[in-house]
Amino acid sequence: MTKKGKAVVLVSGGLDSATVLAMAIAEGYECYALAFDYGQRHRAELDASREISVALGCEAHKVVALDLRTIGGSALTDDSIDVPEEKAQGIPVTYVPARNTVFLSLALGWAEVLGANSIHIGVNAVDYSGYPDCRPEFIAAFEAVANLATQLAVEGQKMHIHTPLMSLSKADIIRRGIVLGVDYGQTVSCYQANDNGLACGVCDSCRLRAEGFLAAGVSDPTKYA
Amino acid sequence: MTKKGKAVVLVSGGLDSATVLAMAIAEGYECYALAFDYGQRHRAELDASREISVALGCEAHKVVALDLRTIGGSALTDDSIDVPEEKAQGIPVTYVPARNTVFLSLALGWAEVLGANSIHIGVNAVDYSGYPDCRPEFIAAFEAVANLATQLAVEGQKMHIHTPLMSLSKADIIRRGIVLGVDYGQTVSCYQANDNGLACGVCDSCRLRAEGFLAAGVSDPTKYA
Repeated sequence: MTKKGKAVVLVSGGLDSATVLAMAIAEGYECYALAFDYGQRHRAELDASREISVALGCEAHKVVALDLRTIGGSALTDDSIDVPEEKAQGIPVTYVPARNTVFLSLALGWAEVLGANSIHIGVNAVDYSGYPDCRPEFIAAFEAVANLATQLAVEGQKMHIHTPLMSLSKADIIRRGIVLGVDYGQTVSCYQANDNGLACGVCDSCRLRAEGFLAAGVSDPTKYA
Repeated sequence: MTKKGKAVVLVSGGLDSATVLAMAIAEGYECYALAFDYGQRHRAELDASREISVALGCEAHKVVALDLRTIGGSALTDDSIDVPEEKAQGIPVTYVPARNTVFLSLALGWAEVLGANSIHIGVNAVDYSGYPDCRPEFIAAFEAVANLATQLAVEGQKMHIHTPLMSLSKADIIRRGIVLGVDYGQTVSCYQANDNGLACGVCDSCRLRAEGFLAAGVSDPTKYA
């Protein structure tokens, strides 16, 4: 297969980004996986991120340390805010202020160092938690920034932000990943997984994931605590 | 004076951002200073950032840890690349990939937590080092992102990115700061200052600074090694 060039893929360790990575590799991109040690509640997803990236055949896997706890403002980065067990009205407390903007910015920095012309991120506007930075108009605006911010941009190279899951249901995402050989047993979606990567089964992310497997008619490989 | 509301001000510890902070305070903003421990060559600028922020009367000063050395690609974040002593042709090796995008993203996150509607940054398109992420079109594009990325944006609040130095010469910046009471002896501009904050006197940043004091007709308070 002809290589499409280098791509930075945001691989959180969850179900969505694992699927994005499998799709990018299947399309022929030379993939560089990026994860963030940002002060999230558990490290199990970072272990999952590395395991999946190796299993799917990335060129490299990088974890950037970034202390979002200094800023706080989210149940994921402030232990004094509990992770809710029921679906929220409006934007939930698990929303991390400007997280995707920060993550895409750092992906852009690494893309520039690598000479990569694409960044792949698993945002989704269907079965999602209502985060403002998952909307297509946000992604389009960030792509415009990416095409002005860097030395590559000054040299006339275009940067593309790929969001292949944007209009897929969770069930569609899972079906797509299964075809591409993703082992979802390696992924961790839970907001508050324990140190062994076992899921709580009650948070919003666990709920969306379980509903997705049910709707896809695929047996759920999630390991619950 | 009527308060204009809360503002996040990026205060690196250098001459430009100190002036931006003094201007924002003079305009009546309630200022929250933000600096980054991003793997830069010296910590003297972080000490300077705190000292200036306290001296000028910020509400708070925060340092976010962020390991840009993991990404590298710049003389400022990779010790294997020397800081040049002559003016570069094109974009110099001191350019840190996507740095202002990353910094503005984190400022945006803190602004959202604080409920601030403005971010102030000391980018300049006149006497600058040729960085792509200091251009007005980059700032405009980032402001568009900021107005889509957050919960505040969803609620209809506008975020403004202020760049009061954009069209000022270094001499103009210095003159403005002197009027506002900035003690430039507290600032560190050098890319490779030593642990005591003493400047090298030969890097691009030292050169621009020294030329600025000369052109402004102000005695240069910089302490050289």
